[in-house]
Amino acid sequence: MTTMLEVTDVTAGACCTPLQREPLSAEEAEQLAATMKALADPTRLRLLSIVAASDGSEACVCDLIEPVGLSQPTVSHHLKVLTAAGFLTRSKRGTWAYFRLVPGALDRVSQVLTAS
Amino acid sequence: MTTMLEVTDVTAGACCTPLQREPLSAEEAEQLAATMKALADPTRLRLLSIVAASDGSEACVCDLIEPVGLSQPTVSHHLKVLTAAGFLTRSKRGTWAYFRLVPGALDRVSQVLTAS
Repeated sequence: MTTMLEVTDVTAGACCTPLQREPLSAEEAEQLAATMKALADPTRLRLLSIVAASDGSEACVCDLIEPVGLSQPTVSHHLKVLTAAGFLTRSKRGTWAYFRLVPGALDRVSQVLTAS
Repeated sequence: MTTMLEVTDVTAGACCTPLQREPLSAEEAEQLAATMKALADPTRLRLLSIVAASDGSEACVCDLIEPVGLSQPTVSHHLKVLTAAGFLTRSKRGTWAYFRLVPGALDRVSQVLTAS
């Protein structure tokens, strides 16, 4: 059985105006800030980088607990925030949940920040 | 007279490991999260984009208050956070403070996020 969490795709909203090209509207700034908040945590950044570096950009939650040295509920909370922000998708296989990087999601944020 | 605020250059620390290439160390993740926190606010994102879009990527604080619709102390606080994070430099000329985008600072963050 595969269960997908609902994804609030705030990264899609971050795709629009490159920050250094023209002033962001209030609405764009709100969307981008929400995306940045999901990234503004050291544990979430490490989890994202571990998932990204895993085979097929996918990792079992069971393999994410030890590297960050936190409890499973805490790790699951951070993964839920990253999923809600559109950076990860979640699927369940047997006992464990697997998290996969959403292709292009981090690149869309990157493109908003760059001048080139 | 020109007065420069001390700059805590956390963006320099964000320059190193591209997030999608290999797992971030705990220290890299702490530095990058601090940088992201400075960007995780809609007013700060708007201020950055207004400064970036101004002539010479520089703007007087007197021209930043009306566009964001907040008080001068609030705007000054947000500009201080962006300066401490290494995104802006501050110089004082006469009555007013001027803020200038640090070349490459946003691009360094962008490069940490992108896969390409």
